[in-house]
Amino acid sequence: MFGRLAGKQVPNKEYAVVPGKVNPDLQNERKKCTFDTLELTHFLDGGVEKYKDRKERENFFLSDPELMDDVPPELMSHEDQYRNGLKKACYLFKKLKELRENGGTIDNYRQLLGGSLGSAILKDGNPLALHYVMFIPTLMGQGTPDQCAYWIEKAWDCRVIGTYAQTELGHGTFIRGLETTATYNPKTQQFFLNSPTLTSYKWWPGGLGQTANYAVVVAQLYTKGECHGIHPFIVQLRDEKTHRPMPGVIVGEIGPKLGMNATNNGFLAFKQVPIPRNQMLMKNAQVLPDGTYVKSPSNKLTYGTMMFVRVVIVQDMASYLAKAVTIAVRYSAVRRQSEMVPGQSEPQIMDYLTQMYKLFPYIATVYALKFSAQWLWNMYNDVTAKIDAGDLELLPELHSIACCLKAVSTADTATAIETCRLSCGGHGYMACSNLPTTYGNVTAASTYEGENTVMLLQTARALMKAYAKAQAGEQLSPTVEYLNRNRKFRPWSNTVDSVVEGFKQIAAGKVAACALSLQRGVESGLSSEETWNRASVQLVDAAEAHCRAFITDRHLDMVRNGMNELSPALREVMAQLCDLYCVFWALKRTGDFLQFCGIRGEDVQKLQDYQNELLVQIRPNAVGLVDSFDLRDEIISSALGSYDGQVYERLLQSAMLSPLNAKPVHDSYGASLSALLRAKY
Amino acid sequence: MFGRLAGKQVPNKEYAVVPGKVNPDLQNERKKCTFDTLELTHFLDGGVEKYKDRKERENFFLSDPELMDDVPPELMSHEDQYRNGLKKACYLFKKLKELRENGGTIDNYRQLLGGSLGSAILKDGNPLALHYVMFIPTLMGQGTPDQCAYWIEKAWDCRVIGTYAQTELGHGTFIRGLETTATYNPKTQQFFLNSPTLTSYKWWPGGLGQTANYAVVVAQLYTKGECHGIHPFIVQLRDEKTHRPMPGVIVGEIGPKLGMNATNNGFLAFKQVPIPRNQMLMKNAQVLPDGTYVKSPSNKLTYGTMMFVRVVIVQDMASYLAKAVTIAVRYSAVRRQSEMVPGQSEPQIMDYLTQMYKLFPYIATVYALKFSAQWLWNMYNDVTAKIDAGDLELLPELHSIACCLKAVSTADTATAIETCRLSCGGHGYMACSNLPTTYGNVTAASTYEGENTVMLLQTARALMKAYAKAQAGEQLSPTVEYLNRNRKFRPWSNTVDSVVEGFKQIAAGKVAACALSLQRGVESGLSSEETWNRASVQLVDAAEAHCRAFITDRHLDMVRNGMNELSPALREVMAQLCDLYCVFWALKRTGDFLQFCGIRGEDVQKLQDYQNELLVQIRPNAVGLVDSFDLRDEIISSALGSYDGQVYERLLQSAMLSPLNAKPVHDSYGASLSALLRAKY
Repeated sequence: MFGRLAGKQVPNKEYAVVPGKVNPDLQNERKKCTFDTLELTHFLDGGVEKYKDRKERENFFLSDPELMDDVPPELMSHEDQYRNGLKKACYLFKKLKELRENGGTIDNYRQLLGGSLGSAILKDGNPLALHYVMFIPTLMGQGTPDQCAYWIEKAWDCRVIGTYAQTELGHGTFIRGLETTATYNPKTQQFFLNSPTLTSYKWWPGGLGQTANYAVVVAQLYTKGECHGIHPFIVQLRDEKTHRPMPGVIVGEIGPKLGMNATNNGFLAFKQVPIPRNQMLMKNAQVLPDGTYVKSPSNKLTYGTMMFVRVVIVQDMASYLAKAVTIAVRYSAVRRQSEMVPGQSEPQIMDYLTQMYKLFPYIATVYALKFSAQWLWNMYNDVTAKIDAGDLELLPELHSIACCLKAVSTADTATAIETCRLSCGGHGYMACSNLPTTYGNVTAASTYEGENTVMLLQTARALMKAYAKAQAGEQLSPTVEYLNRNRKFRPWSNTVDSVVEGFKQIAAGKVAACALSLQRGVESGLSSEETWNRASVQLVDAAEAHCRAFITDRHLDMVRNGMNELSPALREVMAQLCDLYCVFWALKRTGDFLQFCGIRGEDVQKLQDYQNELLVQIRPNAVGLVDSFDLRDEIISSALGSYDGQVYERLLQSAMLSPLNAKPVHDSYGASLSALLRAKY
Repeated sequence: MFGRLAGKQVPNKEYAVVPGKVNPDLQNERKKCTFDTLELTHFLDGGVEKYKDRKERENFFLSDPELMDDVPPELMSHEDQYRNGLKKACYLFKKLKELRENGGTIDNYRQLLGGSLGSAILKDGNPLALHYVMFIPTLMGQGTPDQCAYWIEKAWDCRVIGTYAQTELGHGTFIRGLETTATYNPKTQQFFLNSPTLTSYKWWPGGLGQTANYAVVVAQLYTKGECHGIHPFIVQLRDEKTHRPMPGVIVGEIGPKLGMNATNNGFLAFKQVPIPRNQMLMKNAQVLPDGTYVKSPSNKLTYGTMMFVRVVIVQDMASYLAKAVTIAVRYSAVRRQSEMVPGQSEPQIMDYLTQMYKLFPYIATVYALKFSAQWLWNMYNDVTAKIDAGDLELLPELHSIACCLKAVSTADTATAIETCRLSCGGHGYMACSNLPTTYGNVTAASTYEGENTVMLLQTARALMKAYAKAQAGEQLSPTVEYLNRNRKFRPWSNTVDSVVEGFKQIAAGKVAACALSLQRGVESGLSSEETWNRASVQLVDAAEAHCRAFITDRHLDMVRNGMNELSPALREVMAQLCDLYCVFWALKRTGDFLQFCGIRGEDVQKLQDYQNELLVQIRPNAVGLVDSFDLRDEIISSALGSYDGQVYERLLQSAMLSPLNAKPVHDSYGASLSALLRAKY
């Protein structure tokens, strides 16, 4: 974890971490595993070549001591967290340049800056991340060829460091409500950026506080006295030589947060700040020198980046969850507590069925999310290719499924990580477990890039349209095909196929019920907006059911059709995980199954028995399954979850890093405590 | 919030917080309220006198600028958080002494140190709290009269500062597994404290790190070569003059955590540390000078403190939740977003049904928990009085209901607070919302004082016993009376009475199903322990159902029988909240209602409609309801939730406290960023 301080003295040398010594309980677990973990790792990476690439990339970054923390950021002040994060981020950028100049290819910066690797290097956020993740992609996506030529080279060489300033203090998900204005003056051929109100202050952009010197700013465009809605502008924030804010630019950071405290999230306001006309990004809409506004050919063209980010979020959730569940499973193999049989030794806590129930469904969830993310990624590439060819037909389908998957994957993962943390008891509450930080990173995703309830309501709107089409007998796109009014649902049979079928039936039932509610509302004289609002709790529920039907369907399909090349031993375990995921969710939704799928009380009991059976079947492979995620200790970054299982040694080692332990008597004793003890009050 | 820095300059004077100016949306909400909020506040306090007492007490502590933070602890390093916490804690103790010496009565230190008031003063934990909350009560409860006379005065005067050291690195909830030993040597008439293993290190006690100089240490008692199980000992940890650790005492702090970072949680180990014989707390068991062990008359006598703490936890949960839901409701009245009707202005987000659904059930939960806590408190006092008179009959009942209420109240409150936080969008993620800290405090309670799953399994064990009694036709105690085999359940009628009845029916059904599973397991030849383990997921579920039946029953009973003196306007609102709580949970458990209560799909739809109706009915009173909790701004301590609703002004003000904003160019620019920008790599 904290490489350079690994040798820091503990009170008793006997209890120091011993390199290479593996906890015997973990060794024993590894012996019991029924499949080849390397085979599964290769499968997860997508083949041996990709596996090797990943290992090499990880080695390049994670074996570099400059990228490890001397002390955990949790010990630092907010200001030092930023200093430390910026220093490491600059060093990381240097390495990225090095890699590129040596001919290494980096096909996905987000993979390096987000996900497992990024969160290993900059646990608490990266103040430079948005430069590669949002600033450069926005230039590329929305700049004219001339603009790209001019700006992208500068950005690529880090002569400018940019961020993306959209969200305002008073305006988040609803971007049409943004208040910042960019008013064109044809005389000077400039836009004037202005922040008319407190709520129009930009608020949140990463790296905006003290780091970036440029930003893409999203503002309401005014020209010839008319507002044309929001458009992106390149705005210089700080002097390139002195780094001082430009005249009229008010910029700073927004203060501490639940997590991501090295991200340098900032605020920004303008007092009539001029920028040249050619700093409006004009690939789509344009403002001519005389102030004439030329419309974009399609307002759907700017969807691309937003979709991309949501697709990547689903992938990231699977990575974060893999990390958390690795920590909790390994800890549960090492930790012994209580007695199951009086007089016998304390069992591993993973032998308790309640502990298996807390953890194993989340091993399964990693796969469920991974397979859905894969499908989404393929669809995204498909749709993007078609958009480039002018075909926008599949965009609504992509939008609908990406919205609900973003919401469900982030919400499920947040719950899963907290369950993992709580399953580690008190030690999960310690920062050195890395579970609190992981939760901080993950729960943020329920809000950013489209708040989850809003996302589900967008999917719900698409479902209502699809339902209307289905009723009209029109053709349906693949993810809503189950709404086909002629579809015959297969009767219940206590199999996983039935569960997956059941989720579709539930989704169909809920969608139909919502449609009926909406229809009745309108018939009763309410406005369509009021009707929508009154049905919204149900609509959110229907969208979630739709998403669950999609995820279970993808999961089962992969197990049935996407694993032909795997060994039978591994395929069996993969099937158990899929079954567990499906049964786990069926039992969380027994009300829906009883209502919509004609199951009976005794079927619920059978599902419960089957769930217990699956937990017991998976038990001997649990450690093997998390080992297969093949996460380096630098990524795990947890006293509870390292490969060697020296849990208690690492907890003690972490404690010794606290500056409070530097001297036998802390200075606070003289400063305040001694007076109290000597009754001087 | 940060009293002394309230005037800190914001970028634009126009946007500074203006004392006394109330947001017009909040004013409007307050006008709409249909009941007298002061009437409700008095009811919550338990009468006008108690209301006045509370106001006075709050004024004494919260109007003292010395007890306010200069800067929020989130900006500080871990070490400074402790310095700041200790300084304030010492000052607080001084004020407590002052109050006592002036004849003021403090009947409950825990009320001052925990709950609303304590968490307002020391948001991130109090390193001295355990001195009053655990150390002194343990001396009182387990010391002989002589021991009490000697130690309690010293402790009361703060000549010694103590903590309570029980939990070990390898042993938490299962206290019989503790490894620290206290071995009696009759020659020297001393106990020798020893930590034989790494896992025997004490780990977690608050104030143990650098603060306390004494501790009650729980250790396995050995005398005459025999182990007599765990017993409490008073052990000196640090020299009273120098504060240096005593010879053989290894002590330090355990490092940063998810929350409570000023608590100074510590570790502790002994290398054969001697203490005099009379430092074993001997009210119950004794060791005579020659080493003879004299047993305690009953092992149930030490239950008292443990029960007390669990009772208080349920009360605390209601307080924390009141705080969180006040923040989220006020913010939801001020925040405007999106458009419901195209072209119209942005509505208050509280006008969205999905937002009402996120928040209002948790206003109701405050009452549900409060009423259950009240009942539990009365029962606790009853049982304690009876124990003092030698009657232990009611203890198992108290234990059973306290266990499940501890688990359910902490888990529900944690979920509720995260829902409140997420309902505030990105701004809820900011530390200055105070929601992250509140969550950090609350989620800890799911683990400490008995891990929640273990708690529910203890209740389940009591339920299995009660079920056996019920089957044998024996008399049942009040909380499990519904298990009576002759009880006729009333048929379903779509009323809240039916829902409350339904929860009992569900609990009874689940308890019976568990008993059957256990019986079948044993019949099939499994050991009783293995059978118990295999049924444990179901058993946890049954205990939760039992608890829900109890809470809803208490809630409805209070509304029906405990509010006769309230005005009709207020009673109506209280009834709406009770209905909402019951319907909300019924809809979360539709599977159970369909299985056990004979309801049908159309009844579920009716419950949904009723829930929507209740949300709309409560909407105009939402702000009035949270105003009635009457939490001072110092307690709320949130930019989003202050009484005046100057949300955006306070967010900006909080941001200005960040040291990163002290200068136009931060020193990190020269230290690392400028080199990157000038392409010197």
